[in-house]
Amino acid sequence: MELIQRIEGFTPKNDPRLLGKAEQLRPVLHYRVAGPMEAFVREETGDRPVSLEELPRRPLGPGDRICLDFGTHMVGRITLSLGSSGSHPDAPALFQVRLAEIRRELEEDPKAYHGWVSRSWIQEETLRVDELPARVDLPRRCAFRFLELEVLDTSPKYRLLLQEVRCVTESSADLSQVTPLSIGDGLLERIDRAGLRTLADCTQEIFEDGPKRDQRLWMGDLRLQALASYASFRSLDLVRRCLYLFAGTRFPDGRISACVFTKPAPEADDTWLLDYSLFFPVALEEYLEERDDPETLEDLYPAAMEQIDLIRARFTDGILPRPEDGEATFVDWCDGLDKRACAQAILLYAARHGRNLARRMGDREREADLTVLTERLEHGARETFWDPEQGFFVSGGQISIASQVWMILAGVLKPEEARDVMERSDAILENFPMQTPYMHHYYVSALLQAGLAEKALAVIRDYWGGMLEAGADTFWEAWDPAHPDGSPYGGLIVNSFCHAWSCTPVYLLRRCFSGSPQAKEAPQES
Amino acid sequence: MELIQRIEGFTPKNDPRLLGKAEQLRPVLHYRVAGPMEAFVREETGDRPVSLEELPRRPLGPGDRICLDFGTHMVGRITLSLGSSGSHPDAPALFQVRLAEIRRELEEDPKAYHGWVSRSWIQEETLRVDELPARVDLPRRCAFRFLELEVLDTSPKYRLLLQEVRCVTESSADLSQVTPLSIGDGLLERIDRAGLRTLADCTQEIFEDGPKRDQRLWMGDLRLQALASYASFRSLDLVRRCLYLFAGTRFPDGRISACVFTKPAPEADDTWLLDYSLFFPVALEEYLEERDDPETLEDLYPAAMEQIDLIRARFTDGILPRPEDGEATFVDWCDGLDKRACAQAILLYAARHGRNLARRMGDREREADLTVLTERLEHGARETFWDPEQGFFVSGGQISIASQVWMILAGVLKPEEARDVMERSDAILENFPMQTPYMHHYYVSALLQAGLAEKALAVIRDYWGGMLEAGADTFWEAWDPAHPDGSPYGGLIVNSFCHAWSCTPVYLLRRCFSGSPQAKEAPQES
Repeated sequence: MELIQRIEGFTPKNDPRLLGKAEQLRPVLHYRVAGPMEAFVREETGDRPVSLEELPRRPLGPGDRICLDFGTHMVGRITLSLGSSGSHPDAPALFQVRLAEIRRELEEDPKAYHGWVSRSWIQEETLRVDELPARVDLPRRCAFRFLELEVLDTSPKYRLLLQEVRCVTESSADLSQVTPLSIGDGLLERIDRAGLRTLADCTQEIFEDGPKRDQRLWMGDLRLQALASYASFRSLDLVRRCLYLFAGTRFPDGRISACVFTKPAPEADDTWLLDYSLFFPVALEEYLEERDDPETLEDLYPAAMEQIDLIRARFTDGILPRPEDGEATFVDWCDGLDKRACAQAILLYAARHGRNLARRMGDREREADLTVLTERLEHGARETFWDPEQGFFVSGGQISIASQVWMILAGVLKPEEARDVMERSDAILENFPMQTPYMHHYYVSALLQAGLAEKALAVIRDYWGGMLEAGADTFWEAWDPAHPDGSPYGGLIVNSFCHAWSCTPVYLLRRCFSGSPQAKEAPQES
Repeated sequence: MELIQRIEGFTPKNDPRLLGKAEQLRPVLHYRVAGPMEAFVREETGDRPVSLEELPRRPLGPGDRICLDFGTHMVGRITLSLGSSGSHPDAPALFQVRLAEIRRELEEDPKAYHGWVSRSWIQEETLRVDELPARVDLPRRCAFRFLELEVLDTSPKYRLLLQEVRCVTESSADLSQVTPLSIGDGLLERIDRAGLRTLADCTQEIFEDGPKRDQRLWMGDLRLQALASYASFRSLDLVRRCLYLFAGTRFPDGRISACVFTKPAPEADDTWLLDYSLFFPVALEEYLEERDDPETLEDLYPAAMEQIDLIRARFTDGILPRPEDGEATFVDWCDGLDKRACAQAILLYAARHGRNLARRMGDREREADLTVLTERLEHGARETFWDPEQGFFVSGGQISIASQVWMILAGVLKPEEARDVMERSDAILENFPMQTPYMHHYYVSALLQAGLAEKALAVIRDYWGGMLEAGADTFWEAWDPAHPDGSPYGGLIVNSFCHAWSCTPVYLLRRCFSGSPQAKEAPQES
């Protein structure tokens, strides 16, 4: 599935007042200096360790490579201090720096990548230094654990010395300010720590989806980051800032974009996803549950309601998604999945949050309207997608886990029905296997909603624990244990290995172990 | 022939007083803004022109190339102004910039270069720009006429726009201040203009050998640049500065290095060439002939005499070079050439200039000493290298043009003998063909010295004119018309196509057409 939308002459509608408030909420970044923990040379026969102490005196000539391991995932700016040995350098030093978030990435050949996202994301720089000694600042903020330098050429008269490499890490979340989970369960505690690091590395001047590629604000990621942040760093102002950014630059017809560019200036992407725009009222309501903030409610309430209205207006009879609505819905990086049931469930899910927003606003008329809508959607969902014989939701002839999960999260089933469906769900997992921690988050949420906390924990152990076992320091954008080298983009080398939507064990585990209300997933009648 | 000398633990002997004076003589640079004159796309079927006016709106996607022709050779710093068309850029623009001094260079595959000088000299940069629009300053001062940009990747959502490319040229010589030769001979006038541009492009904060590669001060180049500059830009302070640099940082035993690094601080290279060190007294004497400068004479006289003394001390009986002395002599990029006759002739040549220096200093003792030396060297040269039967100088069994040229320039032959040798010299040109304009300069000088001005002019027309015909805007470091793609380095792509030692028609033509004294090549008895 390639996600490429492009609208000729797209001009977003900006609201300078909302964008001005977003600008005022720009957070302070925390910096920390880090250096490599180990060094080695990759060889066909395995890694050959190199003493870090001797490295500054190790002459590096054409073809020589050295790999530095910073011990864990880093997001920051890298500086190389370079010197020379031998005669006065009589030609520039030409070398390549490759960065890898995980060890496996280094085995990939950048030239072999021919996927559908830009090869410009591959973290590889060819650098030329005319004078030595030199301090070289790599041009971008990087996301990496491993840094490999390969000398392309020096000259017969001198060799390059890699005297120091350091990284000044950046984040607006401070890892030292959060208490990791302490529950006497080693694996879950490790999962929690990796989740916290994932979230911290994605918590920058905005909530980024992932620091390796676009470092950009996506609605689907924001909603999950916000939940995890409420349970840990509590970057409430940053959530608020991101909500203002989404509302402040939109499609001309008022739709909230799937993504907002913030550089050089805030600007809505011309990519729209039905589910992502519906997560705006959801995320706004969840933010307000964390903090009484009438100003934000007042500022952003119209945009939240508009999303629900725009989508119901697209649907047949205001409740049934058409095929193109399913296609405009993300849900997961899963080829061939029919997403109409999900689209309808997510509108219902958003309408429930929207009704709570209306109640907060004291908007009785809207509250009544949304009550009617939720009832119609619930009824329509049962009528159209529920197959009582099979006991599963069926969308376009498919019985997918995604449809079950979203219908349950939307509260279409009674608790005992939901439990029954989720208890039998293993049988359908292979129909359209979940590809991402993002989809797994909603799967675990549905298990919790269905009262299957043990099974939810087992999934967290298996799935997120499986990433740790495969070498994760932070959680990955995509992970299908059956295809560990898979990529939604056509090449593992462009995958993001620290991805916001994968950090949610931070939220899920704290929910499991402190009894956080189910209401966060599906607002109850009140 | 590979010229790689490398001395373990080499520490040059520096004279801070002399280096301080060199620093004070740092020249002012002149800047000029230049832009492309034409644009085209290289295709297998030929070049397809592109309108410069339309270029800023031409969307460039992966694999697209555009070549800009700046109309003539440039030395300066390049700035690209980049924009985008289509959607907001959602991935970095990744592109390559290749620079070429001549059109032919673009046909070379950088990856196919495997010569003995560093591939880091290839003017090719891979650049990644995260935000658009952007202004990108290429990191180095460049030497080029052609700039080719190739897009490696953008994204499916946008294309790159090359909105403007400009070059701010740099030189401490001002081309507009020199009157080109006007002699009613189109070809020679074109040669003069290309020579002036070559010299100007190499006249920077030092006299550089060539602006494409090392941009460095080499003695063999300096001596010829100085002669050409006296006849044109008259950068006398810059000659003086360069002489102070050579004297100010030397081999520990006092030898003048073939080359001085000036960045980050002045430092002698550990490369020594017998003929290059002997050109120091030659260049000093020639400078003093242009300008009465007792301070410089006094400061640099000891270093000049030391070069002569150190080399006579190496020679057998103080006059006959040993095989290793021949090997330490440059003369030309000519494989297999026996250079002993040249080495002896160049010592004699330097000793004659040295005697003039001694006379300027009023150093009678040294003058007498050098008079004896020149007589002994002259005698020794005839005894050892002259073959009266063949009527040529023979060195190591070889009859090369280089040996004849240097013996004549050193004044070993009587005028009528010299004329006879040079009249018959066509017969021996193919023995060890001259590879460079550098050697051709001395060949033409010998023809002039032998009174063969017409033949000298014919060589200038054929040889330097041949470069123009082959596409030169400035004169090339190496040029053998029989092997137009040859390279002393093992790859045309690293050749320098604007090289100081090739600018001398500026001097030679003015000498031919204004009767400049022969004394500049071989000081006469006085």
